[in-house]
Amino acid sequence: MTIENISQAKVFGGWHKQYTHTSIRLNCDMRFAIFLPPNASKAQPAPVLYWLSGLTCTDENFMQKAGAFRKAAELGVAIVAPDTSPRGGDVADDDGYDLGQGAGFYLNATQEPWSRHYHMYDYVTEELPALIEANFPVSTVKSISGHSMGGHGALTIGLKNPNAYRSISAFSPISNPMQCPWGQKAFNAYLGSDFEAWKEYDASELLKQAQARLPILVDQGEADGFLVEQLKPEALIAAAKAHDSEVQVRMQPGYDHSYYFISSFIDDHLEFHAAYLNQ
Amino acid sequence: MTIENISQAKVFGGWHKQYTHTSIRLNCDMRFAIFLPPNASKAQPAPVLYWLSGLTCTDENFMQKAGAFRKAAELGVAIVAPDTSPRGGDVADDDGYDLGQGAGFYLNATQEPWSRHYHMYDYVTEELPALIEANFPVSTVKSISGHSMGGHGALTIGLKNPNAYRSISAFSPISNPMQCPWGQKAFNAYLGSDFEAWKEYDASELLKQAQARLPILVDQGEADGFLVEQLKPEALIAAAKAHDSEVQVRMQPGYDHSYYFISSFIDDHLEFHAAYLNQ
Repeated sequence: MTIENISQAKVFGGWHKQYTHTSIRLNCDMRFAIFLPPNASKAQPAPVLYWLSGLTCTDENFMQKAGAFRKAAELGVAIVAPDTSPRGGDVADDDGYDLGQGAGFYLNATQEPWSRHYHMYDYVTEELPALIEANFPVSTVKSISGHSMGGHGALTIGLKNPNAYRSISAFSPISNPMQCPWGQKAFNAYLGSDFEAWKEYDASELLKQAQARLPILVDQGEADGFLVEQLKPEALIAAAKAHDSEVQVRMQPGYDHSYYFISSFIDDHLEFHAAYLNQ
Repeated sequence: MTIENISQAKVFGGWHKQYTHTSIRLNCDMRFAIFLPPNASKAQPAPVLYWLSGLTCTDENFMQKAGAFRKAAELGVAIVAPDTSPRGGDVADDDGYDLGQGAGFYLNATQEPWSRHYHMYDYVTEELPALIEANFPVSTVKSISGHSMGGHGALTIGLKNPNAYRSISAFSPISNPMQCPWGQKAFNAYLGSDFEAWKEYDASELLKQAQARLPILVDQGEADGFLVEQLKPEALIAAAKAHDSEVQVRMQPGYDHSYYFISSFIDDHLEFHAAYLNQ
């Protein structure tokens, strides 16, 4: 499991670094980024917040635009941002921005032509953490967060792996992908027509069945243009209520779907996660 | 002086907005961005920090990457970011990234073909502030800051207009453009071979002659790849010492030329300016 450093910049006394590596599970070369807080060392390893980005993004959007490092440095939390899909000339793709490269939906595809590379669920839950923990001064203590498609990824991965993560948060997540155009298009392509398979990657469905209960924080802008058709936080809220789960969904008046919104509340999310990561 | 709004996003309780307008002085259409802090109103107008960006940038780099809005909202300071040059198909350009569009150097060009559009000095000091003050809930109280070529712009404009600005700061400024490749290429093209004209746009030269003394803060990363050949803060420090001026130049170990560096210290700059803006 070799990784190659391709950039590094000091930031808030810590480091932002980008790496490439050959992913076994995705069967292609991948890039990821890591923020290491000041003073992280093998003797004092930092816990890790995994950040999953939205449609069309790479490892760079969050790292450049979220304004997360001041607070993460203060809290001693590392942040890892993977890419949003397998990448490369021989990786299946689609003309739409919402399917194929840049739109992996953090699942394991079962349908041709996607099943050769599109195993982002395994990559995020297994291969990437193993790589991170082998190569950096971090502990195995993890939480997970993300935006939009990545909010869907954070919620579904966290709900399916309650022993692997301490806490879950999301900005503007696709909360009920089985019932929205983005999710239906992606699930049809990647998973075929078996609705039982779809339920395994739908946060509102998973929340109904969840046994263990991780703390969950969701922020959603009320001026988000995707709110009604694509994001459907009301399904998540209903599932939480029916199941008596504690999911804190905060509707934020006037905020949209952009990183300006994320930057406004990322400190809250970092403090939320740190309370569990640093326990 | 009509302006057209083309985007807006709520951020930290305030607003980031982009506008286009037809610039009389630049003889082309221009875009700029403004951050308005919460509660800015005609009754309680906000002071303005003008931010000048570096080579290849537009109004977007600082607004998306600097992480400035948390502190600016707290301090009640508006931020205006113009583009870095005139733009458009009929605006003279060059194949290099360091001349022509994206590289206006915040001066008034006197040489063909540049003199038809390249009057960024007049635009930043006169046309843009008049436009901002006529259209937004801001006061006429101003400070100025910038990065690299924009740090050169902030220093030279602030030094030449001590009654218009309260304070000056810069990240990694081109401190002595007459003595570096970027500056020599640009000044030769825009100003011709008259070295006396060059001195009017060289911060280290201007500091030697400065009558009024604005407070100046400069941050410079020691791991900045452009430090030795292009930026030359030692010339600025020497001019300040010879002139008994107060210029605080902070060398920051390990930091490079990127927005990761800027984001790490932008809060210091905002607090520095606010102390004078809110007097």
